[in-house]
This record gives sequence, C-alpha cells and structure tokens, in this order.
Amino acid sequence: MVLNIPAMIGTRIEDIDTPCLLIDLDAYERNIERMARFINKQGLRHRAHAKTHKSADISLDQMEAGAVGVCCQKVSEAEALVHGGVRDVLVSNEVINPNMIERLAAMATQAKVMVCVDDIDNIDDLSAAAKRYNVELGVLVEIDVGAGRCGVAPGEAAVPLAQKIDAAPNLTFKGLQSYQGKAQHVHDYQERKGKIDEAVEQTRNTVDLIGKAGLECEIVAGAGTGTYEIEGTSGVYNELQCGSYIFMDADYQRIAMDDGRLIDDFENSLFIYSTVMSKTKAEKAICDAGLKAQSVDSGVAMVFGRDDIEYIGASDEHGVIKDPENVLKLGEKLKLVPGHCDPTVNIYDWYIGVRGGVVERILPVTARGMCL
Amino acid sequence: MVLNIPAMIGTRIEDIDTPCLLIDLDAYERNIERMARFINKQGLRHRAHAKTHKSADISLDQMEAGAVGVCCQKVSEAEALVHGGVRDVLVSNEVINPNMIERLAAMATQAKVMVCVDDIDNIDDLSAAAKRYNVELGVLVEIDVGAGRCGVAPGEAAVPLAQKIDAAPNLTFKGLQSYQGKAQHVHDYQERKGKIDEAVEQTRNTVDLIGKAGLECEIVAGAGTGTYEIEGTSGVYNELQCGSYIFMDADYQRIAMDDGRLIDDFENSLFIYSTVMSKTKAEKAICDAGLKAQSVDSGVAMVFGRDDIEYIGASDEHGVIKDPENVLKLGEKLKLVPGHCDPTVNIYDWYIGVRGGVVERILPVTARGMCL
Repeated sequence: MVLNIPAMIGTRIEDIDTPCLLIDLDAYERNIERMARFINKQGLRHRAHAKTHKSADISLDQMEAGAVGVCCQKVSEAEALVHGGVRDVLVSNEVINPNMIERLAAMATQAKVMVCVDDIDNIDDLSAAAKRYNVELGVLVEIDVGAGRCGVAPGEAAVPLAQKIDAAPNLTFKGLQSYQGKAQHVHDYQERKGKIDEAVEQTRNTVDLIGKAGLECEIVAGAGTGTYEIEGTSGVYNELQCGSYIFMDADYQRIAMDDGRLIDDFENSLFIYSTVMSKTKAEKAICDAGLKAQSVDSGVAMVFGRDDIEYIGASDEHGVIKDPENVLKLGEKLKLVPGHCDPTVNIYDWYIGVRGGVVERILPVTARGMCL
Repeated sequence: MVLNIPAMIGTRIEDIDTPCLLIDLDAYERNIERMARFINKQGLRHRAHAKTHKSADISLDQMEAGAVGVCCQKVSEAEALVHGGVRDVLVSNEVINPNMIERLAAMATQAKVMVCVDDIDNIDDLSAAAKRYNVELGVLVEIDVGAGRCGVAPGEAAVPLAQKIDAAPNLTFKGLQSYQGKAQHVHDYQERKGKIDEAVEQTRNTVDLIGKAGLECEIVAGAGTGTYEIEGTSGVYNELQCGSYIFMDADYQRIAMDDGRLIDDFENSLFIYSTVMSKTKAEKAICDAGLKAQSVDSGVAMVFGRDDIEYIGASDEHGVIKDPENVLKLGEKLKLVPGHCDPTVNIYDWYIGVRGGVVERILPVTARGMCL
C-alpha cells in the first residue's frame, strides 16, 4: 500500500506535493471560534456536520470548541468517526439496508448514536437491531421542509412516527430533523430567508402537534452555513448542524459576495494546492488539478487571491488557467478554492494543515469514501 | 481502519451494500475481447489507459488479452499499479514536481517506465534523476494536436526536444504522445473525424521532421474510445491508449446513440449500484447515490435498462429519481450508469464483480486518489 502523503510535518509550503488539500490553520481556527461564539450567544447547541470534512480530528476540534457532537450522513462514515474518538454521533439520514442497520446498532455499543426515520416499518427494523445489541438508539423523525428529498410532510404525518418510536423497545424518540437543504445556496437573501421562515413555521407546527400527542421534541435540528442565523434566532430550532462554515467554498463565497449577510464572517480555509505543470502557450497554463482533484457540481475552482488569472476548465487530470498577461511560470504553485467543499474533500486521503508557511498538522480524511 | 467492503465473494446481488461500483463481468470481458480483436487485426499495439479504472487487476486482464502495458497520468498512480504487478507503464503526462521526478526514477528500478515531456529544462531534471537511480527512462515528446492542454505545437517545436532527450544520459527517446482529448466526446461523427484527421496529419508531419533529424519514433501514441478506429487505421499511430471502452459511461453511450458508429461495439459494464432509501412521495424516490457516489461533470447518472424512471438530480448523499408511475419501492436496488466513468471510479475503494447474480470478484481500486 502506498501512503502517498503529500508532505511531512515541517515541510515548507512551496515544497508540498500537489494536488492536495491544504488547510490554512489560522482561518480554520477563526471559523470554528466564530460559529461557537454565535451558537453560545443564542444559547443553542451545535452538532457540527462532519459530512463536510469527514475527519475525526476536526470533529474533536469542533467538540472542544463546544459542539455537543457531530452529525454525518452514512453509517460507515459514523463508524470511521467513532473509531477516531468521536463518541456522540447523529446519522442525519435514513438507514434502510439491513447490514447497515446492524452496523448502526453495533456502533451504539461504543458511542451515543442517533438516526433519522421517515418510514413506519423502518422503526421495527431499527428496534429489533437495537434489541439484539442491547443498546438504546436515539431516533429523530425527519420532516421535509422544502428540500424535496427525504422526510415525511411536516405536520400530522410526523405524529404516528414519533408515537411508534416512543413505543418501540430500545428506541428513544428524540425530536425532529428538519433541514432545508435547498435554501442554503439560494443567492438572493430575501428568497433564502423566505424559504427558512416557511420551514420554521412548518417545524413549529410539527413540534406543537407532537406535543399535543404527549411527546416532547428534545432536539429540533437543522440549519446550514447559508441560513444558520435564521434558524438560530427562530426560537424553534435548538440544535444547529452547520458544517461548511469551517472551510467555506467558492459557491458559499459567491453567496456571501451577493448579499453580504449571514455568512461573510467565515473565511476560505480549505484550498486545493496545485502546480503549473505545462506552460507551452502564452495565454494559458495547465495545472495539475482537474476533475480527479475536485467536484465541479457547483462550478470549477477559483484561484485564491488572484484576479490576473482564472481557472476556466477541467479535464480528468488537468486544469486550464487563463493567463492573459502570461505571468505564470512552470512549477508555480496556486491555491484554488473548491467550488463545493464536501464532495471535493471526499476525493482526498489527507489534509495538510499549514501555518506561517510550514506544515504543522497532517490529518487523515478519516471517513473518505465511507458512503455505505 | 474500516475496510468497508460492500460485499463478499458469493454474496447475491440483491444483498450487496450500496452505493458501490458494480462490474458486469460478462460485459467487461466482452469489451476487453472486442478491443483486442480490433487492435490485433490492425497490427497495432494497445497500451490500455489505466486512468479509467485505476486497477492493477484490470491492467493485468488487459495485458493478458494482448495489451503491451498500460498508461496512466500520475506517478503515484503508476506506483500503485507497479506494486500491483504491472511491469510496463507510461506516464502519459508531464512530471514537474522534484519529489515526483525522484519517485518516477526510483520506480524504474522495478518496472519499464516511460514519461512525456513538453519543456526543454524538464529533460535535464529527468536525466539527472534517472542517473541517480542508474535506470533508463523512456521519454515521449508530447505534442498538442488540438486538445489545448499539455504538449508543444506539432511540427518543428518537437524536434529540439527529441534531440535533447536522445542526447541526455539515462533517457531514451521513444516517440510521440499525440492524444486529441477534445475530440473524444464530440457527438457529431463528421466533426469528430475532422478533428482526428487533422491530428493525424500534424502527427505524421512531426514524425517526418523528427525522422529528418535522424531520430525514429518507435512509438506514436494516442487515441481514445471515441475515435480509436480513426487513429487505428491512419497508418501513423501504432500504439493506442483507449481506456473508457472497458466500462463505457453515459456520455459515451449518448455519443454511440447519436451516430451509431465506432463505439457501439462496447457495452456498459460499470454501474453505480444504489438503493431507494426514501419513498415518501408518489412521484419521486430518493436513492443513496448522490454527489459523493459519482462525478457529474458530464451529467448525472442514467438508470440502466429502465425508461419508466429517471435520475434527475443529485445532492451530496442523495439522488432524486423521477417516478411518474410510482413504481419504486423502499429498499429497491437500481443500476446506474455513471455520467463519466474516470472521475467516478476515483471516489471508490472497491469494484464488486458480478456474474449470474452472484459476486465473483472483488477488486481494489488500486490507484484510487493517487493524484500526485
């Protein structure tokens, strides 16, 4: 097995091999601190979303800053984080495959584990597995407050699920998962706020109905980096799940530039570090970060801190950099801001943490590729 | 470390965990056989492109069917293949970073290694490293025949590079790398052929000029799945580098459907296997394969063999399946054809090879994430 680590502790930034993921540790620590300050001020809990970074080390940094635990989207991802020392994890997603239900329950012998449901029969399967392992699983009912993906309709539909969870052996009804994923990347602030206002009302109504049925929603969870201030001041949500704030990305940066609200407190702390590997043309350069170094679902990477050059296209192993003034040199290194951090991180095995031009931390992407 | 393998040998297809990469072994073997038959008939060599599959096992399957070796794009990728038993590898790309030049030369103590150049000073660096390890590196001059990425202009510009390689200690001039990557995915056949006809003429001219300078191009390399028949019957190219033919993907399939020529011999043999994980709405279903299960640079995945449902959107961990007749059931499994196989494969650690509804081979994606 080739470990293939692009640097060592103490390597100077100019000597790091590329392409790789670089963390600006100062910016990263400021991002953690800023989110913690907001959440503390509001008297809320933060359950940081580890789907962004897939790192046990980063999860533990977030928990040290006050997060109560993490959430993630897959059982195998949760396992990797638990093996890395995280002891409180919510799978903020449904778990359907029988093997994965088994692994979810087994994991609860080592950590506090919660999961979401949106199907009545799934509750029986979870309960049976939890019973086999003699564990207690916390369960949230997921409601669809506009993302159009998983979750039952808000309102009455959530009540029988909550009741069945409450009655099921080895399951504890914990509350609601209510994430409006489609609002996060809406560029117009008023439109974004409108979507969340609606989600807040639907969530409040669902909490009330469940309350009338005699059950308490100890956790009302949701929110992302694009909208956390709205959920966080709603009086309804009490556990925020923001993840991307820790790195930011080009898409969130464009939103911040468009409306200058909410998310302009956070800085780009994650970069794809790349080398100019071919310079045979005056007007452009080819760098070594292409489609296998980033996910382009939200657009290609942006060159950080440069307006004289532009990343304009990606093929499998190459990026094309427009270089109208012919300033780039063969071997020159560039910091690129990923278009979308989550699926980009999922390609890499290592983060290289840099401070003052020197590698200070090397973090494995613990749950890379853990999609089961 | 969590190995997280989605199946075992003998697992029935319906019990495989998802999302994962599935290989239909019958279709895969037919694809290998068909390409080998064409290349043998033309009296050419096949150096299969391992950038598609990143697997040492698949490389060895291709070599058993007659391929002379493989090519790949990165030194670390080549190392992984060499460690997996491949003993003849061309890095069909430039290697610029000093550490990677060192690793390239070191690798040549274990395997036959070739590399490309498009910069005159790079030749000195390669020669010095090869000398340090007392190895001989084969070197191709890359010319840009229309892809607009790496490579010097075809014609005169290639000659001094060839001469310098020929004169450099521990380097052997082997010929030309001449791949028209931009033609592969052109949907109109005449337009695609026009681009390759032009590339063939530029390559022929460059071979002639190098010949007049007293050097022979033992290897004239290029071609991809979209155009191999054109280069393969040109009389100029003698080593074809097709890779995607082994799996095909949705984009190549659309090209085949559009023109019905060249690439309709190959079958989809690679699938993203996915489970319906939420079915709370009549008109759609949510599956467990989203952006972290595929690269969407060439469009989202297609559902294989079904025209009653359609994969219409991806978020990080979810795919949205349009289900107008409400036929999908929770837990149902689907075979998805990736939009673009190469960067999709690069996300996964394992291939699950299936025949007759049962898992027969499990292959590691040996060079997954090897981007250095």
